[in-house]
Amino acid sequence: MTTREMHDRMANAIRFLSMDAVEKANSGHPGLPMGAADIATVLFSRYLSYDPQKPDWADRDRFVLSAGHGSMLLYSLLYLTGYEDIDLEQIKHFRQLGWRTAGHPEWGHAAGIETTTGPLGQGLANSVGMALAERIMNARFGDDLVDHYTYVLAGDGCLMEGISQEAISLAGHLKLNKLIVIWDDNNISIDGAISLSDSTDQCKRFEASGWNTTRVDGHNPDAIAAAIEAARKSDRPTLIAAKTTIGYGAPTRAGTNKAHGSPLGAEEIAGARKALGWDAEPFVVPSDVLDAWRVAGLRAAKERKEWEKRLCAADASTRAEFERRMRGDLPQGFDQLIVDYKKKLVEDKPKVATRKSSEMALEVINALVTETIGGSADLTGSNNTKTSQTGPIKPDDYSGRYVYYGIREHGMAAAMNGMTLHGGVIPYGGTFLTFSDYARPAMRLASLMGIRSIFVMTHDSIGLGEDGPTHQPVEHLAALRAIPNHYVMRPADAVEAAECWQIALESTKTPSTLALTRQNLPTVRTEHAVENLSARGAYELAGTNGDAAVTIFATGSEVEIALAARAELEKRGHRTRVVSVPCMEIFAAQSDEYRTGLIGNASVKIAIEAGVRQGWDAIIGSDGLFVGMSGFGASGKIEDLYKHFGITAEAAVEAVEKRLASA
Amino acid sequence: MTTREMHDRMANAIRFLSMDAVEKANSGHPGLPMGAADIATVLFSRYLSYDPQKPDWADRDRFVLSAGHGSMLLYSLLYLTGYEDIDLEQIKHFRQLGWRTAGHPEWGHAAGIETTTGPLGQGLANSVGMALAERIMNARFGDDLVDHYTYVLAGDGCLMEGISQEAISLAGHLKLNKLIVIWDDNNISIDGAISLSDSTDQCKRFEASGWNTTRVDGHNPDAIAAAIEAARKSDRPTLIAAKTTIGYGAPTRAGTNKAHGSPLGAEEIAGARKALGWDAEPFVVPSDVLDAWRVAGLRAAKERKEWEKRLCAADASTRAEFERRMRGDLPQGFDQLIVDYKKKLVEDKPKVATRKSSEMALEVINALVTETIGGSADLTGSNNTKTSQTGPIKPDDYSGRYVYYGIREHGMAAAMNGMTLHGGVIPYGGTFLTFSDYARPAMRLASLMGIRSIFVMTHDSIGLGEDGPTHQPVEHLAALRAIPNHYVMRPADAVEAAECWQIALESTKTPSTLALTRQNLPTVRTEHAVENLSARGAYELAGTNGDAAVTIFATGSEVEIALAARAELEKRGHRTRVVSVPCMEIFAAQSDEYRTGLIGNASVKIAIEAGVRQGWDAIIGSDGLFVGMSGFGASGKIEDLYKHFGITAEAAVEAVEKRLASA
Repeated sequence: MTTREMHDRMANAIRFLSMDAVEKANSGHPGLPMGAADIATVLFSRYLSYDPQKPDWADRDRFVLSAGHGSMLLYSLLYLTGYEDIDLEQIKHFRQLGWRTAGHPEWGHAAGIETTTGPLGQGLANSVGMALAERIMNARFGDDLVDHYTYVLAGDGCLMEGISQEAISLAGHLKLNKLIVIWDDNNISIDGAISLSDSTDQCKRFEASGWNTTRVDGHNPDAIAAAIEAARKSDRPTLIAAKTTIGYGAPTRAGTNKAHGSPLGAEEIAGARKALGWDAEPFVVPSDVLDAWRVAGLRAAKERKEWEKRLCAADASTRAEFERRMRGDLPQGFDQLIVDYKKKLVEDKPKVATRKSSEMALEVINALVTETIGGSADLTGSNNTKTSQTGPIKPDDYSGRYVYYGIREHGMAAAMNGMTLHGGVIPYGGTFLTFSDYARPAMRLASLMGIRSIFVMTHDSIGLGEDGPTHQPVEHLAALRAIPNHYVMRPADAVEAAECWQIALESTKTPSTLALTRQNLPTVRTEHAVENLSARGAYELAGTNGDAAVTIFATGSEVEIALAARAELEKRGHRTRVVSVPCMEIFAAQSDEYRTGLIGNASVKIAIEAGVRQGWDAIIGSDGLFVGMSGFGASGKIEDLYKHFGITAEAAVEAVEKRLASA
Repeated sequence: MTTREMHDRMANAIRFLSMDAVEKANSGHPGLPMGAADIATVLFSRYLSYDPQKPDWADRDRFVLSAGHGSMLLYSLLYLTGYEDIDLEQIKHFRQLGWRTAGHPEWGHAAGIETTTGPLGQGLANSVGMALAERIMNARFGDDLVDHYTYVLAGDGCLMEGISQEAISLAGHLKLNKLIVIWDDNNISIDGAISLSDSTDQCKRFEASGWNTTRVDGHNPDAIAAAIEAARKSDRPTLIAAKTTIGYGAPTRAGTNKAHGSPLGAEEIAGARKALGWDAEPFVVPSDVLDAWRVAGLRAAKERKEWEKRLCAADASTRAEFERRMRGDLPQGFDQLIVDYKKKLVEDKPKVATRKSSEMALEVINALVTETIGGSADLTGSNNTKTSQTGPIKPDDYSGRYVYYGIREHGMAAAMNGMTLHGGVIPYGGTFLTFSDYARPAMRLASLMGIRSIFVMTHDSIGLGEDGPTHQPVEHLAALRAIPNHYVMRPADAVEAAECWQIALESTKTPSTLALTRQNLPTVRTEHAVENLSARGAYELAGTNGDAAVTIFATGSEVEIALAARAELEKRGHRTRVVSVPCMEIFAAQSDEYRTGLIGNASVKIAIEAGVRQGWDAIIGSDGLFVGMSGFGASGKIEDLYKHFGITAEAAVEAVEKRLASA
């Protein structure tokens, strides 16, 4: 048991490392680490199960700093508890290019950072996915292998963001009782007092969604400890509202927004030294304090070793399966499964919507890849995300494989990221492509982190018809393609859909969006290929390069139109080839040789896609022809819409002939 | 007073028009109109103040169908109460191309549609802006001219979306007591029972944010009326949780998700006819029922005329100001104000960040244009959105001109849309450009509606420095440019900032995003121009077209780099010109002649922008050179970052010379 005096000194070590690092960087946020230091000290020295020597221990507790601007809190903790990745040099180079101690915690920069945070509310919503993944893995592998908590430190900003409502209502509904959120309730945001912009009774709000809540003095270690202990026993997720003083210890700025986001300055820090009785030089942690922290860091090593023994004692197949899933490897036989399935498709030639093709592929995949966890933001029947293997995940019964996320696209995407980060499961979740806008901040973070979250986005164009322009994506393909490290895949038929699913599942460092149609499409890939042709991003579907006067590039539902245009152009004597472009990003990453070869030298290059042109010039050139959308869609029947907006084989043929005539 | 029998028949008229229209369209959502018909009948026949003969009556109550999929409810009401725009032919052509009765209600299609809804939660969040605009206008013009309610019909989806939390917590905080939200509490979402995905006690949740709440039987007209009457007297916004049966009257589908989103079929409709005692043929409303509805539609005509008398009786300047503001016209002298201000800038040559330039322009603008309402999602000091004229808007005191929106980007943007739609005010609101992702669904709707909401997005590149990649936009310029009808403006200096503000304020049918720097920039526009050069989207800033070997295109902070590169290239003997591109969308809309002339024929075209390349090929060609970002940013000092990512004059010069050498 830590004495109160030692607790205070351990907490002050966080405070001064944070003040010093922000000061040296001349940039950063000292207020949160200073205010939340007591909470963090209690959590990391008494409750959190983690082992700095084995940071990837699968059954560790997860800690999420949702208020990511307080990154120095986390870096201080990682240094103090003995994580190798964050040494004192890292702390001294806080926020400098090339160092691990980025302005906001970035997953992958250092062990112990469980997710990238900064955009507010994301960490909280990630944690719901982590806590859910824990329960799912527990249901599969039992208490012996999976039984840990997810702790979150969230700020006012996290709770004011709308995503927090989606997160807490989902967590409350699913009774994720091993999720414990500590709210750094400091009454301050950047603009000033919270009372400038909010009057919400947060505890009452969380209770309304089925949470256990409690209020504590965030500077009283015993009270914090008691609250955590009670939370760990709750049958519901818990919010601990910990009243704190932002910038605790700063003589004039504590309790104000002046402590939030800028260096305190030498004078204020000197005052804090005096107020908190801290004699050490900048960046120096007195050896007894560092020792105490290092001991805290060793606390769970025994527990971890016992867990390893249990893993070793498990039967071989259970252990192998557990380890495979935690590594993120796909089961043996996955590639062959896809090849065999594609062969069957080429024989069957289904004429179905690609959302249905996606479901058919998933039906095959989910049978082998038992770690997939499907879901939809209340569009299950429209997104075709549920297969025969994916029974519902329910409160108190996490043995299923399907999450009814509710009308919560943003919360879904962020929870999926949390599940991916937790490991052991591969989440995919659906909504309409137009509502990717709602999920976008989380989709971006998946890309930034480089993790395998798979977004199933159906109704991917005006082809959705009568629901009209609010529901018809036109700019979304371009907008998603703009995000670095994100595969936007738009399969043209069932074969490409299977290939795109293969790519998505095999891309462990890149999230994927599958853009899928509502309307039926013919099978255009009529010859079996063992190779995943979509894995080149684009490939020649019809015609040959040598003699073509016209090359038509198209994606998804417009490949059918491209083929019809080709037939007509050939009839009129124009040698025409069609290139299918299921994934622009992958195509852009191919060799120059492949790219220039495939693009070719036809005198007319034309792209057909029921979206905006932006991005296509890279393939067809700024003088290329484009058949697509230049504004919003409209409500009407699909056939009326395609005609009205001129996305037809006839329009393409006409444009090509006009260009050929003018050449 | 309507008899209960007549009430029922009036409600049934809505139900059958909705069933019939969905059936004929073979597409649409009958469940909500059938379930909420009683609520709507009470509201539209007894409480809502509106005049179908003068639908733009400024002091009418606003009605927002946040659950936009229930569009037939609104179309039925507009037809029944006598709005000219929606006649029976419109109802019969529900969801057909070219008709006003789109799948979801679209603002501008017909009078009486107060906002475009469909993407869930947006209408609810719009309504907060409408109710706030009402209070702001009331504070300015008094009860005589502005004193009306905002009513919302919201569904479970609206309440599950995160944006709803931002909306209700803001409304509760601001005590918008004339906002009355009726929740169509039917326990059903698309996937099935709400209990599949949610367990939230919505009343408790709203109460936690300071709302008055009440629960009623949504099929009991007297109970609904009593709840509305109580709500109108509340000193807080009110949630009326009205328990309803989705698809009320449908014999087998009522109360299930099968009533939600598809035609009921002839048999089910026949059953509903029997169950509800409705003998009329499809699309026929018995004359006594139609008469009762038309009388309801006339109910507020007297009130409207009295209001007009009060407007006439007001002093001339008040009336003129009120009418000007409601028309959306800018005050006289606005153009000259900008010209004079630009002249001063050219003399002063400030070296400030464009976020500061924006503030300086606003300081000038806000003095004349007193209808601007500033705000920020808790980044006031960073977004520079507050000027000396904009005192805070507070609960119970709406005389200010600045909204502390809190950490609610999405709710802010949607509330801004609601303010714009209400009229009389011009809202602008700020956050970091990277968090435009959070606000994007509302920004898209501003574009779709074509309304003047102005988004101030600062920290617009890696130039924000240490906060790192979570906070550094790289794809956001491209992603926003992809949205049709949205001006993305990135001024290069204080002069362009003033011009961009002029464009934003004068563009009544296009929303604008101003992308502004954190870092200081020199004044590059050193010669005074009366003309707004930015209003051409792009213009020649340095050099001339005739003899240039190199043309550099750049925006915002990279114009400075372009000019430095030009200086060096000229020094090395390469005639170089610089084209500033403050707004690509406006440039794309210029005449072919202007565009091709400005782009010119220099043998090397190069663009410099600290974002992704996507979109630039339209100007520089796919073989043009690009100096910008190809992935995410990093945490570090700004100078380190620009160097690290190669966005420098040196890099541009090197690329140009390499290209020139290879030519």
